[in-house]
Amino acid sequence: MTQATVTKARTFTHLVSKEGGVKYPLEALNVCEETFSPLEVAYDYDAIRAQVSRETIEAGPNSIWRYKAFLPVESENPIDVGTGMTPLVKSNRLARRLGLKNLYIKNDAVNMPTLSFKDRVVSVALTRAKELGFSTVSCASTGNLANSTAAIAARAGLDCCVFIPSDLEAGKVLGTLIYNPTLMAVKGNYDQVNRLCSEVANTYGWGFVNINLRAYYSEGSKTLGYEVAEQLGWKLPDHVVAPLASGSLFTKIYKGFREFAKVGLVDDKNVRFSGAQAEGCSPISQAFKEGRDFISPVKPNTIAKSIAIGNPADGVYALDVARKTQGNIEDVTDAEIIEGMKLLAETEGIFTETAGGTTIAVLKKLVEAGKINPDETTVVYITGNGLKTQEAVQGYVGEPLLIDPKLDSFERALERSRTLERLEWQQTIV
Amino acid sequence: MTQATVTKARTFTHLVSKEGGVKYPLEALNVCEETFSPLEVAYDYDAIRAQVSRETIEAGPNSIWRYKAFLPVESENPIDVGTGMTPLVKSNRLARRLGLKNLYIKNDAVNMPTLSFKDRVVSVALTRAKELGFSTVSCASTGNLANSTAAIAARAGLDCCVFIPSDLEAGKVLGTLIYNPTLMAVKGNYDQVNRLCSEVANTYGWGFVNINLRAYYSEGSKTLGYEVAEQLGWKLPDHVVAPLASGSLFTKIYKGFREFAKVGLVDDKNVRFSGAQAEGCSPISQAFKEGRDFISPVKPNTIAKSIAIGNPADGVYALDVARKTQGNIEDVTDAEIIEGMKLLAETEGIFTETAGGTTIAVLKKLVEAGKINPDETTVVYITGNGLKTQEAVQGYVGEPLLIDPKLDSFERALERSRTLERLEWQQTIV
Repeated sequence: MTQATVTKARTFTHLVSKEGGVKYPLEALNVCEETFSPLEVAYDYDAIRAQVSRETIEAGPNSIWRYKAFLPVESENPIDVGTGMTPLVKSNRLARRLGLKNLYIKNDAVNMPTLSFKDRVVSVALTRAKELGFSTVSCASTGNLANSTAAIAARAGLDCCVFIPSDLEAGKVLGTLIYNPTLMAVKGNYDQVNRLCSEVANTYGWGFVNINLRAYYSEGSKTLGYEVAEQLGWKLPDHVVAPLASGSLFTKIYKGFREFAKVGLVDDKNVRFSGAQAEGCSPISQAFKEGRDFISPVKPNTIAKSIAIGNPADGVYALDVARKTQGNIEDVTDAEIIEGMKLLAETEGIFTETAGGTTIAVLKKLVEAGKINPDETTVVYITGNGLKTQEAVQGYVGEPLLIDPKLDSFERALERSRTLERLEWQQTIV
Repeated sequence: MTQATVTKARTFTHLVSKEGGVKYPLEALNVCEETFSPLEVAYDYDAIRAQVSRETIEAGPNSIWRYKAFLPVESENPIDVGTGMTPLVKSNRLARRLGLKNLYIKNDAVNMPTLSFKDRVVSVALTRAKELGFSTVSCASTGNLANSTAAIAARAGLDCCVFIPSDLEAGKVLGTLIYNPTLMAVKGNYDQVNRLCSEVANTYGWGFVNINLRAYYSEGSKTLGYEVAEQLGWKLPDHVVAPLASGSLFTKIYKGFREFAKVGLVDDKNVRFSGAQAEGCSPISQAFKEGRDFISPVKPNTIAKSIAIGNPADGVYALDVARKTQGNIEDVTDAEIIEGMKLLAETEGIFTETAGGTTIAVLKKLVEAGKINPDETTVVYITGNGLKTQEAVQGYVGEPLLIDPKLDSFERALERSRTLERLEWQQTIV
């Protein structure tokens, strides 16, 4: 992938605390010292409006960098590894199965280079890390972020130290080690890993993409909003369903839609935001259902490890987005998650990880509860690839039919399988 | 992904035998009954020249279907799952390690939807299968083809029966089962699976993508040539290095370059074609080195299962291409294959499967032997994703450092790893 070259004046102006609006310079800062609320990047939207149009964006690189004016990087040559512009799939077969009419899958299971939406935030964070002079980058990760940070750091020639919970799926561990970073497997859950990393960030001069670089990093998720709007023909959808881990992705897709409306790239409208969690780690869903405006941390226990964050940093902001857009937040069991993975694969040929299974299962649950109108243009965000969480479905997808390399052996096996199918089919209609 | 809509007159005219030029109608036919040589699709290149230009192609869909005029399908809406237009990565860090100046990686490890180049040939084959009226599609596969056929058949709503050797990597088996096809695991190697499938193809009215649909299917690989030429700014490279399994990919990239020159989309030139095999299955490499113009079949024994074809259907044609373009064919050991996978990951952040490791290891071997000129614009084809062959590198990529969620535990581990690195570094310079 040749690097994107977009020469424009800087459009981001400062950091500001999410509460109280305290201003900070554009450095590697985490939280507001006065309000203790997270910091966010502020932009000059007049400058953006003057720089971009649908035409300039369409003429840009086929990656997240076509939206560079909306992202907090100054480099004329940001790290471009082809991240973004993943397919928005019109999902007619899944839609029929669920009784929907206008369903789309935003498929980041094939995002580049490491097959999850994390490549978006890491491309932004590591570009900013280089601008701020960091030579070592790091992260606290449930797996996908570890893969992405290690891969893109390797490509960019940055030193890399990654922290993960020690019980991660084999594919996510190997999919990090292969890039040869320093990999720390912490005996504990993600929230303990995260606390340790905050200490390390304060002691070492490292750029932690989701701690001291988090304000820049999280902006990368806005591109999941921009791309959907552009791929729908410069229109906002009626309803989106996305997974909730820290809550950041959810709130940034919302921010992306708001920004596109603000600068006049799309007509403004209310997009309903519905969030998906696993029952075994559903602090945001619980707060939503109980009408609370605060999150009670939980101890995660689910196969959906990539979204198993018991103390979500942006949980309250995700709650707020769901409520003010008339969306919903639901959670599903591990069994429903596996069914969701299989349903998406069988109908659309997309093999997603447990987080995607969670989102599909919640979609199904919301449709059955009448909380998604069949006519709504609904976009479901699939954020990671099933090859990384093979343990989750191993044993739930049947077995191959073992045969000899002979025609009669094949024919006997085929007859057996067809008889089986007939029986299953008869059972379903009984 | 919205479907490609390119309305043009049909540009493919008939099937023709590779030897003797015997003509056949555009049906599901495998070999020439007179010469027993494979059948190939013939085109009306004047019609193509009249239809396409650099501009019309650039204005086409961001998938292989931008080259529809060069592909053997009639449908105005071919099956478009975003396949193709994968990144051509300028690989500066790997180039420096090898002493090259103009190295590019064509990265089909992130091809959509199933992360290998097979999505190209299957998109073409299943589109043609529907045109020819097949309701059940099938294939003989070493894994990647199984994944792709099952996934795209699911998306297209076609019945699917897939045949694989029973000893495949877990990721490739699960990555097929998830789409819920009928999966036959044959006790034998690929060549035995292939023979069985030829019998089944003659007995059942199924569309076998790589048997009775092979003439159409194999044309999909030409897009790996077209894309590289377009991504290089409508220029042909000086040298390509690609893996050799059946030999089809290799010869079709060559055909793609020839066709682009023939219709005037690029200036004509000799592109050197070098092929990569695993020592444990190197019938084409052996024939090349021994100056033979025939292939002696071998019994495969290598970790590079996806290219382990002991009796390659297009082996002699691949030999011919390598020789007439002043290329080379080399093979490497399983240990070199693993080193190749690690080298690509550490330098470019690309996690490829064993076939890609084979190609990188052969690239290294050819450079060290002076068979690739450092100034040549060299394109290496990476055809599959490492998450599917995790067994191959498991145990060769080190282990995570297991720590407690405490700063001092982290610091002790970091010190240990740094001491280790210093020792390794001292050993390398001793």
